Amino acid sequence: MENNINRRKFIQSSTLAGAALIAPTHVTKATGLIHKSPNSKINIGFIGVGLRGQNHVDLCLKREDCAIVAICDIDNDMLDQTKKMISKAGASIPKIFTGNDRAYLELLQQENIDAVIISTPWRWHTEMSVAAMQAGKYTGVEVCGGFSLDECWELVRTHEATQTPLFFLENVCYRRDVMAILNMVRQDMFGELIHLEGGYQHDLRGVKFNDGVTPYNSGVEYGDKGYSEARWRTHHSIHRNGELYPTHGIGPIAQYININRGNRFLQLTSMASKARGLHNYIINHPKGGATHPNATLKFNLGDKITTMIQCSNGETVVLHHDTSLPRPYSLGFRVQGTKGLWMAVNKSLHIEGISPAHRWEDAQPYLDKYDHELWKRHEQKAIGAGHGGMDFFLINAFVECVKRNERPPFDVYDAATWLAITPLSEQSIALGSQPVMFPDFTRGRWINQKNTFAINDLY
Amino acid sequence: MENNINRRKFIQSSTLAGAALIAPTHVTKATGLIHKSPNSKINIGFIGVGLRGQNHVDLCLKREDCAIVAICDIDNDMLDQTKKMISKAGASIPKIFTGNDRAYLELLQQENIDAVIISTPWRWHTEMSVAAMQAGKYTGVEVCGGFSLDECWELVRTHEATQTPLFFLENVCYRRDVMAILNMVRQDMFGELIHLEGGYQHDLRGVKFNDGVTPYNSGVEYGDKGYSEARWRTHHSIHRNGELYPTHGIGPIAQYININRGNRFLQLTSMASKARGLHNYIINHPKGGATHPNATLKFNLGDKITTMIQCSNGETVVLHHDTSLPRPYSLGFRVQGTKGLWMAVNKSLHIEGISPAHRWEDAQPYLDKYDHELWKRHEQKAIGAGHGGMDFFLINAFVECVKRNERPPFDVYDAATWLAITPLSEQSIALGSQPVMFPDFTRGRWINQKNTFAINDLY
Repeated sequence: MENNINRRKFIQSSTLAGAALIAPTHVTKATGLIHKSPNSKINIGFIGVGLRGQNHVDLCLKREDCAIVAICDIDNDMLDQTKKMISKAGASIPKIFTGNDRAYLELLQQENIDAVIISTPWRWHTEMSVAAMQAGKYTGVEVCGGFSLDECWELVRTHEATQTPLFFLENVCYRRDVMAILNMVRQDMFGELIHLEGGYQHDLRGVKFNDGVTPYNSGVEYGDKGYSEARWRTHHSIHRNGELYPTHGIGPIAQYININRGNRFLQLTSMASKARGLHNYIINHPKGGATHPNATLKFNLGDKITTMIQCSNGETVVLHHDTSLPRPYSLGFRVQGTKGLWMAVNKSLHIEGISPAHRWEDAQPYLDKYDHELWKRHEQKAIGAGHGGMDFFLINAFVECVKRNERPPFDVYDAATWLAITPLSEQSIALGSQPVMFPDFTRGRWINQKNTFAINDLY
Repeated sequence: MENNINRRKFIQSSTLAGAALIAPTHVTKATGLIHKSPNSKINIGFIGVGLRGQNHVDLCLKREDCAIVAICDIDNDMLDQTKKMISKAGASIPKIFTGNDRAYLELLQQENIDAVIISTPWRWHTEMSVAAMQAGKYTGVEVCGGFSLDECWELVRTHEATQTPLFFLENVCYRRDVMAILNMVRQDMFGELIHLEGGYQHDLRGVKFNDGVTPYNSGVEYGDKGYSEARWRTHHSIHRNGELYPTHGIGPIAQYININRGNRFLQLTSMASKARGLHNYIINHPKGGATHPNATLKFNLGDKITTMIQCSNGETVVLHHDTSLPRPYSLGFRVQGTKGLWMAVNKSLHIEGISPAHRWEDAQPYLDKYDHELWKRHEQKAIGAGHGGMDFFLINAFVECVKRNERPPFDVYDAATWLAITPLSEQSIALGSQPVMFPDFTRGRWINQKNTFAINDLY
């Protein structure tokens, strides 16, 4: 629910920020960061401190080089959890912004904030990122939340006008096996890449529904009666039909084939299966059943969404979205080139001239041998960080980039490109799997840009 | 090269056969078979006795219930090999038809032939099948060879006019794991099926090219200078771009989701990667190199062709075609429903309520437990037959169906539907991955037909 007074404030501040794009106020502010020593301490504000935001808070609390100076959330319980976490770490309690959906705009007005990390429901990602860039705060934003091509363009336009960097917080690019394979790709072990697959295959039924108290596998409620992601994510499965969560798959693939850096996505076509999984989950759950009110819900999201993408340099990409059926977790990576291929699901690879002809080999010895130098250097620090350590590398890169006001490895053009997959796939499915075209968000600059992601052991 | 005299003969015989469709000559002939005792011996003619045809000859020689009375090929070497094989088995040398491309028409005029098995290059499959049905011979035809929707219709129309059965010889439907999974599907172990994958992922570089003497991995020649499949199959990689070999993947999938038996394919969209594999093979082969004449060949066939198919009952299917890159053999099956999934590549499955939550299990104990009754009964006879025993079941079913003049498990409608994938995928790729529609070759009869494939342990 929007608060009218704050809505007015928001419009005012947007307008002012819009004006600032012509006058270089914010640009100067952002440029100011360049002159900071890369070793100085930065001040971070958190917009959204739900369970995901708290992961990031936790990682920042372990660092000497960043201070959490502001947090914003509309959920008091999540704010309390975060404050406790901060106290326990011996840090000062930051300034709190809460009370309504636009409280984040007040946080963005704080002069002492260098950077923000946005970990809110998808619906807010673009709006908050645009406001953060306009406020001149180095912007880190959690993954997914593409609804329209227009808002992807809005991210790009806002960045170009403000020159504020946007770091798209895609953690899977830092997964240890994904980085070892990147290392192998760069050493030409797979030859010229031809075909890639990835996606998000994760049984989220127990995330989309819970008992409103505990986040996982505890019931069949959602929305106002749900907790954590069940409060908002489930609505997307009810109303939308498309590749809703493309970035964990496409982020690493984009690194392998240098998307927006000498290559780009041209077009995609998507296909959706029927939807059965979530309804069955409600019907068969001990707390659900055929007479439960949610048993009458209709879900638009097909249980399996498959998307094929064609690239400018001739590669094909397949994305698998599969979150409503019982299954083991698998991002389903496949990296295939003229010299061989890796597949994540069978933990195996084949390299011509090295592997026995026509035979798989266990990938692990290769993953060990080609372990990325970032992982070799920072392994100890990564231990215990979220999602198998990759979240450490993500936040480390974010903080180090902010400290240098450096262009992030996954920038606003990547954000726009990867996010665009969702509305494009919805469009394609609505049109009976028609191919739909990717905009070139870089306006031709992809041709000359180089891939600098993880080119050394620094961050 | 066409022989004009034989061409005239062919036209005459076609015309006569066409007339016969109105007069019931051939229908009577076919119907005549119905009255044969199912235990009687049948006479088979072989059109095409190259390496694949010889597999089938070998299996027939081991049986008491069929006699090889005629063989046809234009390759004397292959004829000699086959005659030796027949002599060695102690059987009589059959009548030989050879000398020109239409010699098979003379074979089809032999009164004593009950059935034919066609194992020729793709280009001949439809033409020979049509002539065989017109001649009233129970027709078995090897897989693939779809070039146009019209010839798919021609197969259907010819069958409907002559009532001669056509058995599409897709062997992978009889693979032991594929049949165990069919058993599990029919026992509702995977629930309602949602998404399926399959395809043909087989490094054929050493098949598409050889030294003209030995069939595999022996050189970089093809066409007139090649041997066996390299003589003809390679041309398709040079000239065409599409899902050229869909049936090993789609045959089993069609059984799982009852295609043409309560379900049908509605549409597909295909995407092709760039083509690099075959050129690289020539360049890097010890007998090839950058100066070899074949180094200048251009290949139209993308190294990886991906096809998505939508079904009337809401399932999605993905087909993978991948025959020009170094890789281990894998048909890549995935069978996924509301209760779980099987994947062939990691030899694993997950069944809700049985497998540990979110975990894979080794598929083998399930494949053993749900071993199909056909395999249990005939295992000993299958040992040593081609392709891991599945060829025994294929030829066994063919012979038993011929003996009863029974409708084959994979009939002319299946042949047309499965073959249609190739021209449809070529069309889709040529149109930039546009969706293209499947004809309903059954003209609505799919709605009421039942799946009777392997419903008992007989054949």
